[in-house]
Amino acid sequence: MQVCAVILAAGEGKRMKSKHAKVVHQAAGLPLISWVKAALDGANAEDQVYIVGHRQEEVRAVLGESVAFVLQEQQLGTGHAVQQASHFLEGRRGATLIMCGDTPLVTAASLRSVLDTFEKDHYAAIVVTAHAPDPTGYGRILRDERGHVQAIVEHRDATPEQREICEVNAGMYCFDTALLLSALGRIGCRNSQQEFYLTDTIEILRQDGHKIGASSLPFEEVLGVNDRRQLQESMAILNRRILEKHMIDGVTIVDPATTWIEQGVTIGTDTTILPNCSIKGSTEIGSDAVIGPDTHLVDMKVADGVRLDHVTAVESEIGARAYIGPYSHIRPGSKIGPNCRLGNFVEIKNSTLGADCYLIHQCYIGDTDVGHNVNIGSSASTANYDGVNKSRSAIGSHAFIGSNSCLVSPVSVDENAYVAAGSTITEGVNEYALAIARAHQINKEDWVKTRGLNRNQRLNP
Amino acid sequence: MQVCAVILAAGEGKRMKSKHAKVVHQAAGLPLISWVKAALDGANAEDQVYIVGHRQEEVRAVLGESVAFVLQEQQLGTGHAVQQASHFLEGRRGATLIMCGDTPLVTAASLRSVLDTFEKDHYAAIVVTAHAPDPTGYGRILRDERGHVQAIVEHRDATPEQREICEVNAGMYCFDTALLLSALGRIGCRNSQQEFYLTDTIEILRQDGHKIGASSLPFEEVLGVNDRRQLQESMAILNRRILEKHMIDGVTIVDPATTWIEQGVTIGTDTTILPNCSIKGSTEIGSDAVIGPDTHLVDMKVADGVRLDHVTAVESEIGARAYIGPYSHIRPGSKIGPNCRLGNFVEIKNSTLGADCYLIHQCYIGDTDVGHNVNIGSSASTANYDGVNKSRSAIGSHAFIGSNSCLVSPVSVDENAYVAAGSTITEGVNEYALAIARAHQINKEDWVKTRGLNRNQRLNP
Amino acid sequence: MQVCAVILAAGEGKRMKSKHAKVVHQAAGLPLISWVKAALDGANAEDQVYIVGHRQEEVRAVLGESVAFVLQEQQLGTGHAVQQASHFLEGRRGATLIMCGDTPLVTAASLRSVLDTFEKDHYAAIVVTAHAPDPTGYGRILRDERGHVQAIVEHRDATPEQREICEVNAGMYCFDTALLLSALGRIGCRNSQQEFYLTDTIEILRQDGHKIGASSLPFEEVLGVNDRRQLQESMAILNRRILEKHMIDGVTIVDPATTWIEQGVTIGTDTTILPNCSIKGSTEIGSDAVIGPDTHLVDMKVADGVRLDHVTAVESEIGARAYIGPYSHIRPGSKIGPNCRLGNFVEIKNSTLGADCYLIHQCYIGDTDVGHNVNIGSSASTANYDGVNKSRSAIGSHAFIGSNSCLVSPVSVDENAYVAAGSTITEGVNEYALAIARAHQINKEDWVKTRGLNRNQRLNP
Repeated sequence: MQVCAVILAAGEGKRMKSKHAKVVHQAAGLPLISWVKAALDGANAEDQVYIVGHRQEEVRAVLGESVAFVLQEQQLGTGHAVQQASHFLEGRRGATLIMCGDTPLVTAASLRSVLDTFEKDHYAAIVVTAHAPDPTGYGRILRDERGHVQAIVEHRDATPEQREICEVNAGMYCFDTALLLSALGRIGCRNSQQEFYLTDTIEILRQDGHKIGASSLPFEEVLGVNDRRQLQESMAILNRRILEKHMIDGVTIVDPATTWIEQGVTIGTDTTILPNCSIKGSTEIGSDAVIGPDTHLVDMKVADGVRLDHVTAVESEIGARAYIGPYSHIRPGSKIGPNCRLGNFVEIKNSTLGADCYLIHQCYIGDTDVGHNVNIGSSASTANYDGVNKSRSAIGSHAFIGSNSCLVSPVSVDENAYVAAGSTITEGVNEYALAIARAHQINKEDWVKTRGLNRNQRLNP
Repeated sequence: MQVCAVILAAGEGKRMKSKHAKVVHQAAGLPLISWVKAALDGANAEDQVYIVGHRQEEVRAVLGESVAFVLQEQQLGTGHAVQQASHFLEGRRGATLIMCGDTPLVTAASLRSVLDTFEKDHYAAIVVTAHAPDPTGYGRILRDERGHVQAIVEHRDATPEQREICEVNAGMYCFDTALLLSALGRIGCRNSQQEFYLTDTIEILRQDGHKIGASSLPFEEVLGVNDRRQLQESMAILNRRILEKHMIDGVTIVDPATTWIEQGVTIGTDTTILPNCSIKGSTEIGSDAVIGPDTHLVDMKVADGVRLDHVTAVESEIGARAYIGPYSHIRPGSKIGPNCRLGNFVEIKNSTLGADCYLIHQCYIGDTDVGHNVNIGSSASTANYDGVNKSRSAIGSHAFIGSNSCLVSPVSVDENAYVAAGSTITEGVNEYALAIARAHQINKEDWVKTRGLNRNQRLNP
Repeated sequence: MQVCAVILAAGEGKRMKSKHAKVVHQAAGLPLISWVKAALDGANAEDQVYIVGHRQEEVRAVLGESVAFVLQEQQLGTGHAVQQASHFLEGRRGATLIMCGDTPLVTAASLRSVLDTFEKDHYAAIVVTAHAPDPTGYGRILRDERGHVQAIVEHRDATPEQREICEVNAGMYCFDTALLLSALGRIGCRNSQQEFYLTDTIEILRQDGHKIGASSLPFEEVLGVNDRRQLQESMAILNRRILEKHMIDGVTIVDPATTWIEQGVTIGTDTTILPNCSIKGSTEIGSDAVIGPDTHLVDMKVADGVRLDHVTAVESEIGARAYIGPYSHIRPGSKIGPNCRLGNFVEIKNSTLGADCYLIHQCYIGDTDVGHNVNIGSSASTANYDGVNKSRSAIGSHAFIGSNSCLVSPVSVDENAYVAAGSTITEGVNEYALAIARAHQINKEDWVKTRGLNRNQRLNP
């Protein structure tokens, strides 16, 4: 069966109080409309047309070239919105799903089940419904004795008995495409709002004698996003779904409420995620790792058995059993070898470290290729930028870089070489050589006494 | 209508297990009693008298000079407490609100609605009530057919049928001031506890033929704080209310459960707050900013489009589109110009930075005035304290401060000047000059070999 | 009464998707099986035998020598598992508790109450039950008019009426030891699963005319851990219980959901724990301290009035009123004196600091003994490892260590001595002496201009 989809994404979304289109606001790493598209893709809706209006350039930019767009210049109701897609739908067969672009929680599996019901039971249309804990404000679903939809009664028109009904219209539909087109041409706007209602097509088809079904989804899946509170709820639900999957697959997550993992991240079994972490983009984490607390990863490759404690790391690779943190920052383009130990206040940028390197405190290594088994002391740094150019340096395997030294790039410290503490290195150091650049120490006896210094160390320096 | 208020704040609050008065414990940035005062202020209760006792000095210190205090030396019941206010109330008219100082969740709007009902319907007194999910332990409200209060029955005296009543006495009242004074003089303490009960005044007025009303508030608003668990619940509810307001106003808050914003903070639309942030005091944040995760702000001014990632910042200003973090610390008295980029393990204290400065790693700038377009390298620092005095330094626009250099204050590095990496600068540097203070590098060939060093880099340094 | 316990810990726990035994997974600082053991210890179950199988070496390693183990080579049902303990139980008297090793939430108090009921009412056996919110899948408890257990009906065998029963079999039992042994010998495996069911012993004893009781526990206490989601729930519940106790005892916890405190930690009254903290091991915290946010402590001793803000600290002591953070790291073996002030990006390792020391920025002190009232400047560090050996240094009281200096260990800076900024110190400094090791500063006028440097500071260094 051919499946089309019409997605309503033209509305202003005033309650978001935003200068951006509502449907491009992000939840769990994706714009709302992209979640909808992903669900439709997963339901094999091959021909998707997005009805755009307010801030249409943002919606088009997010969705890209693979879908069709139709501009709805004036917003004259849901029926009017779908009418804009008539030209797109003409000549197509099968089913057309209609939904709003602000419902990121609907799943592909649910859409497939709606399509299956539609196809199996030969409905002219299916209204997607949900059982609302509090149905106030929603259109109620009236079913006949066979379970077919008899009417959708708006809240304001409902009798007290009808208001007791908790099955509500979710605002998603599946239509026979040809019948939809025929009905769309026949709806009017003779109502108090002077709008064209999509629900009128349902009534038209029913009066034509067609069978109208209803397919109930979990209420959670049909929630729309109309303000930032609902946006936040969507984020939390989408995130929780992702976390549940990882937990079922053998990942220990200590605090799901403070763990934010984007879709597409992979994590091996017996890895533990400690509280307050975010793991984003295309990050891959191996098995037996311990991540967190307070660790934030974007597009990282993290091997088995790695320990990351209070780490921010972006677009880099970390080798097996490396132990990094607390308070380390791995910037893009870095590759940390296996068994490395990087400690507090250490920054690595666009550099490679071989296996078994030891950078345990306050140092900065940028644009540098480091061999294996290298020890770099506290407060050591690479001066990789001279105000005009950036340059790379190299440190050979088994080298020792003393505390508070500075390598002025480009410079090479060869294998087994030794840089004395406090030295500023501007010339290359050969294998097994010691490089030292230090002024002679002078002690001026009694200087403190003669200067009459009566120090108050507690001043706030 | 003149509105007085009597606030009971003399109790010991034993279950807090604290050496401080219960009502001075803080929730969401304010002492409990200050939340009560704010609600009363918002309800235009101009004459407030606080009944104090235990740790009265703390309560007085928190509330200051603008309200009246009466000491209740012995705690002989709620009626006795209010009796202490008789002298204060004498000669006043209108209504008197009576409430406890440990109920921080009641809102000004609710108190206003109670006062409105009182005034409109000419009650002698109104008992504030709430519907308790579990009324066990509370006094139950018995209403007559007109809805007037017939009696307040204590839990221990209630019949099984009365115990089914969920409308409970919230311990807040609105009295006609003159009638209150008259009734207060007539209550006794002939009960098992030998205490004077304020509820007896209600019964006295009713028996005098006066009309007693009941005004129901949400249960959440009447919750008292008796132990640290209830204190925590109050914190969470007060915080959630503040967050809801920001969300409705167009701020994206990813995780309300780990976002703590104090009242009085302002945030522009389309700003996003990431998880685990606290924003306190008089902080103002512009639009389109991204704050967090793990960011803590106190009394900050943050302009539009700023990005703060893992930042602690206090009493400073950050210019538009500045990007700070991760792991940066802005200390009081700092002013960061627009478009500045401050990176990891950077500390700024009592300094100004012009626009477009670049301090990307491990550096400390204290008591220094920095121009615009200045680049300061890794591990550079200002030595602004000599053990006796603190001094200021200056770095001109377009200057370059090399890595691992140290500016010994007071010192000036003029515009376009250049400080070589590893230099300790003690004398001023003129415009366009290079300052260098470095020992000559000596390489001792084969030193490592001759010393027979067979290094084990994996020792824990 | 003698109390034995048989704990079933042989299962594979497939749904954990783990290479480790299910019962050694940790919750709130302890393996699941250790929580069970602690509850049994607290109920005075002196003779405990653990039935082990899958990954038995891990289970044995966790529990150690104080309990007995029996290997169940094949898993042929709960009855078969307990049969393995027959030899262990023979000749013992009193009661035998039987439970699973994956139920970490049961408390000692609950087990004691079961034993009390068993002893007082002379039951042959007691089935521990709970009222399940959704009993689907559980065995239902059928009671007779005296409240005795008539039968345990498995879900699949239950009639629709029986399925309405919410009291379910918790899988914990208390047996008369002798009767248990007699019944164990008489159960068969003639059922569809070909397994030996422990519940058959209940039926056997009942048919023998013995009295079978049921003792209901809170549903929370009987929850088992079968997958990582249930593991996480257990963690959260165990943690919450610990936090509640601290709150009741006078500790303010701002956000229980992000505060993780292990059992055994002690905290004084009027101490506040801010969000996102973990406090582990044998940590002791005094009164009036403020801990957090984002602070992580393991095996620490923290005195009264200490302020820790964004601190990671392990196996060290912090003196009264010390203020540490934000972003400080205290590594094992350190002792920080009272009133010390340690600031951002400071690391202390295996060092002692006397009272009133001031290390406010970016510095590393390792393997060093520091006196009192010492001021250590920004980016100062100890070079305590030369690539082969680690050495200790000493800094006397009232000494001043300038910014960006480096002490090459072993070296002594005596009392009241002064190290100039930017100096690398390799020789001892006497009392009141100034040590300086600095190259002379040379200013090359117009160097920047003649080099034609047209700098773009915004390059990413």
